[in-house]
Amino acid sequence: MFQVNDNFLKLKAGYLFPEIARRVTAFTQAHPEANVIRLGIGDVTEPLPAAVIEAMHKAVDEMAGRSTFRGYGPEQGYDFLRNAIAQYDFQARGCYVAADEIFVSDGSKCDTGNILDIFGAKNSVAMQDPVYPVYVDTNVMAGHTGPADESGRYQGLTYLPCTAENGFTPAIPERPVDLIYLCYPNNPTGAVASRETLTGWVNYARANGSLILFDAAYEAFITDPAIPHSIYEIPGARECAIEFRSFSKNAGFTGTRCAFTVVPKDVVGRTSSGDRQAIHPLWNRRHCTKFNGVSYIVQRGAEAVYSEAGQQQTRELIQFYMKNAELLRQGLSAVGIEVFGGVNAPYIWLKTPGEATSWEFFDRLLNQAHLVGTPGSGFGASGEGYFRLSAFNSREKVEEAVVRFQALMGT
Amino acid sequence: MFQVNDNFLKLKAGYLFPEIARRVTAFTQAHPEANVIRLGIGDVTEPLPAAVIEAMHKAVDEMAGRSTFRGYGPEQGYDFLRNAIAQYDFQARGCYVAADEIFVSDGSKCDTGNILDIFGAKNSVAMQDPVYPVYVDTNVMAGHTGPADESGRYQGLTYLPCTAENGFTPAIPERPVDLIYLCYPNNPTGAVASRETLTGWVNYARANGSLILFDAAYEAFITDPAIPHSIYEIPGARECAIEFRSFSKNAGFTGTRCAFTVVPKDVVGRTSSGDRQAIHPLWNRRHCTKFNGVSYIVQRGAEAVYSEAGQQQTRELIQFYMKNAELLRQGLSAVGIEVFGGVNAPYIWLKTPGEATSWEFFDRLLNQAHLVGTPGSGFGASGEGYFRLSAFNSREKVEEAVVRFQALMGT
Repeated sequence: MFQVNDNFLKLKAGYLFPEIARRVTAFTQAHPEANVIRLGIGDVTEPLPAAVIEAMHKAVDEMAGRSTFRGYGPEQGYDFLRNAIAQYDFQARGCYVAADEIFVSDGSKCDTGNILDIFGAKNSVAMQDPVYPVYVDTNVMAGHTGPADESGRYQGLTYLPCTAENGFTPAIPERPVDLIYLCYPNNPTGAVASRETLTGWVNYARANGSLILFDAAYEAFITDPAIPHSIYEIPGARECAIEFRSFSKNAGFTGTRCAFTVVPKDVVGRTSSGDRQAIHPLWNRRHCTKFNGVSYIVQRGAEAVYSEAGQQQTRELIQFYMKNAELLRQGLSAVGIEVFGGVNAPYIWLKTPGEATSWEFFDRLLNQAHLVGTPGSGFGASGEGYFRLSAFNSREKVEEAVVRFQALMGT
Repeated sequence: MFQVNDNFLKLKAGYLFPEIARRVTAFTQAHPEANVIRLGIGDVTEPLPAAVIEAMHKAVDEMAGRSTFRGYGPEQGYDFLRNAIAQYDFQARGCYVAADEIFVSDGSKCDTGNILDIFGAKNSVAMQDPVYPVYVDTNVMAGHTGPADESGRYQGLTYLPCTAENGFTPAIPERPVDLIYLCYPNNPTGAVASRETLTGWVNYARANGSLILFDAAYEAFITDPAIPHSIYEIPGARECAIEFRSFSKNAGFTGTRCAFTVVPKDVVGRTSSGDRQAIHPLWNRRHCTKFNGVSYIVQRGAEAVYSEAGQQQTRELIQFYMKNAELLRQGLSAVGIEVFGGVNAPYIWLKTPGEATSWEFFDRLLNQAHLVGTPGSGFGASGEGYFRLSAFNSREKVEEAVVRFQALMGT
């Protein structure tokens, strides 16, 4: 009989969000009159920028005419989009990234998972804790770990704890690791990495032959001009880092689907026989063999993000969400809650009041204030005692959430 | 230093289509006046159906308003699309497939490659020869093969030769194999499988605990009412088959990107310890972890394929391409070329005249008739001495191609 991939059975079964849904459903069934406000999932709420809408209508019309119809496009993305990305996201910030180092895809979730296809099975892997669960789960699926312990940590992974004690900035590991996932601005903690911090990582990676998998999906939310937006702002990063970027959170593409990954031609690993091997041709082969390009209509929408109008509209979207973050920060701080993040990132990471566990606070918030957030322990063992709130919501709901938080803490 | 996946280095470097492009470019540079007609790649040429265009415009407008905006959708696809697929593609043909067994994706290329994630590394794998190269290449990448020999066959794969001698219908293997790729209507040969043939495969798979990976991307081109469109028309297939389907070729979505995979809940494999394990939850976990759903706009376009207008327009598209196929078949037969396919599939598979190798005929056709096709040997060792022509083109170009073929064979 054919055999399945056993590694899937090691996965703690999609614990976090289904459990949240279960508890919220139970609550709303018991209290159908309650007006529950959801600040849990990191999904945008505002419409797409007008420039994107206009570009997609135009592209749909092109698909209706024989002379303008587009069939298969280049798997890596159309030049019009790769060139715009290279110019505006990198060259304009003084980073050298060539258009043919950019691979357009349908999502950073896909890319951060699929990237493991091009690596060997023997690499040691490090990641921040708490962390975006996809990095962990895809390593488990690929057989890079042993089973999970009770706290949810998988044997064989190197976890880099990020807590208030270290300012959510993990120390560089003492032993060399091969692959290192870094997410800045961070999901879920909202922390950012200074130029010095990133320089430390790049120097470490170059010294040890490590590869940094840099997830910059939230770079557009950086407000502090001293904070790098791309790891390629750090000298030497072209030799040791892949960068993941997305249109999901800056331009609201969570349901429209477009992202990209930068794979510099300078990154070189080794084969099992010890030969040097560049990874750009491997990823190119993977992308062309197991992917067939992003919808033409969507790529035209993404291109419009870089137009003058698109840039202006995107900035306004981000300012809108960051004002939400500010209201949450201020409103919660005012009643004594210790809050982190929310300045250069759309997530507020708070210390649960009164030594409550993450889930205890979840239940209290739901039952007493009819608010839904995400328990920090769901992102990893070091998230215990923390709680994530998302700034992606309407102003009205954010303001109401602050009122309820303040009432809860006053009681 | 971090390690790369060595298996990629076994891949014969994207030999076929780049080599075609190289020879065509060399020819057109030497003969800039030549009007080259391309019948090589299987890409559609006609605009999207009007019903699809209308639905996508409406969906783009929804993305422009706060109350109708869509963020993250269900990774598996929206219910409106899964329900339409289950009803029209399966239940209407008397097959039991539930909506939650349908996983909407951005392409069958992706799905046929990604599906390997959920299987173990020790399965024996069989596939037709000639074959869609993605099945082979993704098995090589996953480490399921040894190196390739001179004919391009990889050690460790079981090839099922499909030639004129066996009517392009391979015999069922004598030894049990675990995973079997079957593509019907076939790319590249254009052959179809009768109910009896598919029943033989389903019985074999059930007897041996094998899994059939059934690629039905071209099912819409079946004209013979006796030929099954889905493997689930065969009793027992729900226990032993996954089916891949696409909107690329029926509705012209090659550049729009939408497909789906059916994973029945009845398919059960085994773990390495010998326990039985259903694959539906494994694929669901893979799909939710490494994929984030198809663009809402595109899913609304795909839904419109099932509207009354969409069905009518899609039928007209297919009839248009099938008339092209008929013109090629008749025109080539008339001058003594032995042709196969093109009746229930958009591909003409022809025996190269005069014992020419596939590449010799390619060069002759390009140099003497300014026509581009695909050498059969590029699809596998058993494709040597054959040649593929695609019916995806304008009527005018197909008619001109026939005239040139006839002139070539008359010389």
